[in-house]
Amino acid sequence: MADTKILDFFDNPNGTDGSAHPFVIEHINEEFTSVCPVTGHPDFGTIILRYIPDKTCVELKSLKLYYQDFRNEGIYYEAVTNKIAKDLNDAMSPVWLQVETQWKGRGGIRSNITVEFGKKP
Amino acid sequence: MADTKILDFFDNPNGTDGSAHPFVIEHINEEFTSVCPVTGHPDFGTIILRYIPDKTCVELKSLKLYYQDFRNEGIYYEAVTNKIAKDLNDAMSPVWLQVETQWKGRGGIRSNITVEFGKKP
Amino acid sequence: MADTKILDFFDNPNGTDGSAHPFVIEHINEEFTSVCPVTGHPDFGTIILRYIPDKTCVELKSLKLYYQDFRNEGIYYEAVTNKIAKDLNDAMSPVWLQVETQWKGRGGIRSNITVEFGKKP
Amino acid sequence: MADTKILDFFDNPNGTDGSAHPFVIEHINEEFTSVCPVTGHPDFGTIILRYIPDKTCVELKSLKLYYQDFRNEGIYYEAVTNKIAKDLNDAMSPVWLQVETQWKGRGGIRSNITVEFGKKP
Amino acid sequence: MADTKILDFFDNPNGTDGSAHPFVIEHINEEFTSVCPVTGHPDFGTIILRYIPDKTCVELKSLKLYYQDFRNEGIYYEAVTNKIAKDLNDAMSPVWLQVETQWKGRGGIRSNITVEFGKKP
Amino acid sequence: MADTKILDFFDNPNGTDGSAHPFVIEHINEEFTSVCPVTGHPDFGTIILRYIPDKTCVELKSLKLYYQDFRNEGIYYEAVTNKIAKDLNDAMSPVWLQVETQWKGRGGIRSNITVEFGKKP
Amino acid sequence: MADTKILDFFDNPNGTDGSAHPFVIEHINEEFTSVCPVTGHPDFGTIILRYIPDKTCVELKSLKLYYQDFRNEGIYYEAVTNKIAKDLNDAMSPVWLQVETQWKGRGGIRSNITVEFGKKP
Amino acid sequence: MADTKILDFFDNPNGTDGSAHPFVIEHINEEFTSVCPVTGHPDFGTIILRYIPDKTCVELKSLKLYYQDFRNEGIYYEAVTNKIAKDLNDAMSPVWLQVETQWKGRGGIRSNITVEFGKKP
Amino acid sequence: MADTKILDFFDNPNGTDGSAHPFVIEHINEEFTSVCPVTGHPDFGTIILRYIPDKTCVELKSLKLYYQDFRNEGIYYEAVTNKIAKDLNDAMSPVWLQVETQWKGRGGIRSNITVEFGKKP
Amino acid sequence: MADTKILDFFDNPNGTDGSAHPFVIEHINEEFTSVCPVTGHPDFGTIILRYIPDKTCVELKSLKLYYQDFRNEGIYYEAVTNKIAKDLNDAMSPVWLQVETQWKGRGGIRSNITVEFGKKP
Repeated sequence: MADTKILDFFDNPNGTDGSAHPFVIEHINEEFTSVCPVTGHPDFGTIILRYIPDKTCVELKSLKLYYQDFRNEGIYYEAVTNKIAKDLNDAMSPVWLQVETQWKGRGGIRSNITVEFGKKP
Repeated sequence: MADTKILDFFDNPNGTDGSAHPFVIEHINEEFTSVCPVTGHPDFGTIILRYIPDKTCVELKSLKLYYQDFRNEGIYYEAVTNKIAKDLNDAMSPVWLQVETQWKGRGGIRSNITVEFGKKP
Repeated sequence: MADTKILDFFDNPNGTDGSAHPFVIEHINEEFTSVCPVTGHPDFGTIILRYIPDKTCVELKSLKLYYQDFRNEGIYYEAVTNKIAKDLNDAMSPVWLQVETQWKGRGGIRSNITVEFGKKP
Repeated sequence: MADTKILDFFDNPNGTDGSAHPFVIEHINEEFTSVCPVTGHPDFGTIILRYIPDKTCVELKSLKLYYQDFRNEGIYYEAVTNKIAKDLNDAMSPVWLQVETQWKGRGGIRSNITVEFGKKP
Repeated sequence: MADTKILDFFDNPNGTDGSAHPFVIEHINEEFTSVCPVTGHPDFGTIILRYIPDKTCVELKSLKLYYQDFRNEGIYYEAVTNKIAKDLNDAMSPVWLQVETQWKGRGGIRSNITVEFGKKP
Repeated sequence: MADTKILDFFDNPNGTDGSAHPFVIEHINEEFTSVCPVTGHPDFGTIILRYIPDKTCVELKSLKLYYQDFRNEGIYYEAVTNKIAKDLNDAMSPVWLQVETQWKGRGGIRSNITVEFGKKP
Repeated sequence: MADTKILDFFDNPNGTDGSAHPFVIEHINEEFTSVCPVTGHPDFGTIILRYIPDKTCVELKSLKLYYQDFRNEGIYYEAVTNKIAKDLNDAMSPVWLQVETQWKGRGGIRSNITVEFGKKP
Repeated sequence: MADTKILDFFDNPNGTDGSAHPFVIEHINEEFTSVCPVTGHPDFGTIILRYIPDKTCVELKSLKLYYQDFRNEGIYYEAVTNKIAKDLNDAMSPVWLQVETQWKGRGGIRSNITVEFGKKP
Repeated sequence: MADTKILDFFDNPNGTDGSAHPFVIEHINEEFTSVCPVTGHPDFGTIILRYIPDKTCVELKSLKLYYQDFRNEGIYYEAVTNKIAKDLNDAMSPVWLQVETQWKGRGGIRSNITVEFGKKP
Repeated sequence: MADTKILDFFDNPNGTDGSAHPFVIEHINEEFTSVCPVTGHPDFGTIILRYIPDKTCVELKSLKLYYQDFRNEGIYYEAVTNKIAKDLNDAMSPVWLQVETQWKGRGGIRSNITVEFGKKP
């Protein structure tokens, strides 16, 4: 299972003392795949991470490797979205964080899941 | 007529004691069809279910079968939208729930109906 | 001139005692035509009706016939939009009603007109 | 199973002695549904009929009813496309006829099938 | 019924002796309406005229008025397309002429009709 | 320079005593051109006028002629947007008025300017 | 490595004696993934199979499983496209077959590969 | 009236002895405007020049100035298209040349004109 | 490194005493490129500047040259966005300013960064 | 100036004796930039390489580096397109090769250039 130990972080370029001028970062990964825990068939989706950093930002290449670690994991849409949001929120303690997942259709139904921590100012 | 007994539910992955971290689930079914109760001709539409779960979530395959049970029912746009929203709200008691239906044109007029229970926080 | 006597109505499926659970209905007619009162040339547009019903809803086929009665009427964009909104508002006394008209270009200028009665809750 | 007896025809407006000036007719039905013979789940698709009439043309409303008769039939993509093309070709003996079907995805794979009788001049 | 007497023509700007350098003219009218001869309901469509002029070209404003004369005529898709193509071909004797009509849906089926005179070089 | 004397106005169809039921009018002119005062090269843009009339509305053909008077004027994006908004606001004293201009790119940069008078209720 | 033994086939519904009326089948899989043999990073693409069957057609679910077997294989764009085309051509001996692959970008460059067996009549 | 004296040319980079390796150049000007000779109202269009050079190519900035010289000229769609094509063909003697003009609608009708010299190999 | 000394400014056309009628200016540069400080590979993006001027506005050509000075600079997405926003905010002291950058994908992940100074009234 | 020495090649996976089954490779680079030799301003474009390999194929990462070497070169649209096509054709001797470049607008005019070697079979 994907582990946040693979993630790297760098200092907020606006300062790390918690009083930095706020700004919004959005990373859109259109190449996410995991496996349906019931059928064993692959799921394909887009993962959108949006956050306002406090002291640290997530490094892009390590984020990509973290996402790739779900490739052969059997996990539900709802669970993977909550796990990614919680993992990144715990690791960065940002001012605000939102993870939105958009899944390709299964049996004619497409699903989107959104998890949010904190309030967007 | 479609019956909610066909629906399966699973526990909210964020917890079932009513204090779970809230998140939004959206299921988009672009392959809905029922029958016009007046003319007997088929109606085609998209059903969008959005909700914030409290203790339970609806299982996707059972939701699909519930929708398919309208296939040969004669029912008005307004009635089917209200029935689906009420059925799912009664069965799950979610924090918030919205059902939006988008219907292909009849006689040059397209229709959309939206029913909502609770307030989106 | 189009007359509301042609319109049929049916009871709000959520109840007719004024305390029905509110929902939004939208009917989009992309095949509207009337005549410019100055030049006599035809005007083409889309009429979007949105409302929250109180005790009654407008029947779709009668609405289409009501719209068709403008086909050979000479009437300005602003006047026809206000007339349709007022006609339907008077006939149904809905909780909220909005009529938006979108007109194809004349002399390089496209026009949209929006009239609203009540407040969308 | 859909039967061509339900189809009505009208005379080629350019003449019925076989020497009529040729022209192309295209009817696009975006609201086709049948049933998968294996899983029993509904299939949804678009049926595009293109032809150059010889002596007769198919009447539009009867064509719609013919298509609706597939609604609860279990039949494969390949079979239904060949049956519609053959039915209409046998019934009208047109100069040229093509039926293209475009199916919504199943298990991540979308399919299109094309059958043609005669040569487009 | 629309009559070609309303049409005006002007000389081919490349010369009128039949040896003019050929060029293609296309006029697209997205605001055509006539009436279904069976139901009496209005039909809406786009008329695309393409031609290579020989000695004369059709004047644009007169073409618009000619099209407007179909506004309250009851006439089938196939018939109106053939009539427009034949009218304009007879009146201009062009090197090549094509009329394509694209009709908004009726009962879920959209139709396109194409008539051609001569060969596009 | 374009002068508001060219503009014609007509009475608000909902009444002219200042208590008329409010509605929104939008006129979109996608064929605006003026000249860059520095380089002398033409500028091309779209002018969107939105307003809630008080006692008078601007007549569409006179608005078009007013816009055409900028054709050979050398004037900056910011200046022309403010001038049009101020001219129309002074001439009509509307409840609310907004002018948005959208300019095609120059040197790889596209610009949009928005001026507003009053508050949209 | 994906093996064609996983593929199932069914008889051409137009006949299996080689004289069947020809028709075109297209299967579009937008959820293909394999692995770059150099970097080990996942590749994502769309696989479009088009063919005119002779005696047999490929069964859709088995085709999906065959595609899924590339999920963790390290293989170049050019190689996987040629392998799929050759595998299916060898297994079905169709009248004509084409495989087109469309790959998401790597380092700012998107790639498409097309392999064809036989001539489309 | 626009004069070809304003045009600059440069040598075909593949050689000027008439045996240069052929290639196709396309210049798309989406900001063309002239004036209707009848109404005096401005016309707006796109001019697409495509050609295979022989010995010379047209310089881009001079082409832009040549097009700008039509800004206040009263000239018909058909005439301006033929003039531009003939002007450029006479000035460059290319292997092949095509000019396509696409005009915004007037009275609900959009027009496209295409003039070609030589054969595209 | 890009320096704000290259920037030119002009007076707010609505007045420079701080009480000017407010309006919004948006400049969209779809042709921005800088260099990744880690890999040395070029980054491509769109820079959107939006602001409400106080006493001065930035001149468009000088803004373009300022952006071009990043062409061969190695700088992170987050840093360049914050630098541009801070540079322009310091130089103009506007009522409100926002810089949004939208970057083409790297390794399957696209990024957008937004920095804002002041509150949009 | 970009030099083909930077390019790497690999063997045609279908064989290198000249009798390999033909297939088409397309590489689309939407992130190309060079410099206008006259103004010194950057040009941005898309480079599409299409070819049928004979004995060798170009390696994707080396192709990207070759393209990046034009970043600060002053070179005309026509020249860079012919150079890339000739460089790659000389280096690979493919059965067929085409290079198409699509350039963002300068002064309101967008340009596309296409160079081809050999005949597509």
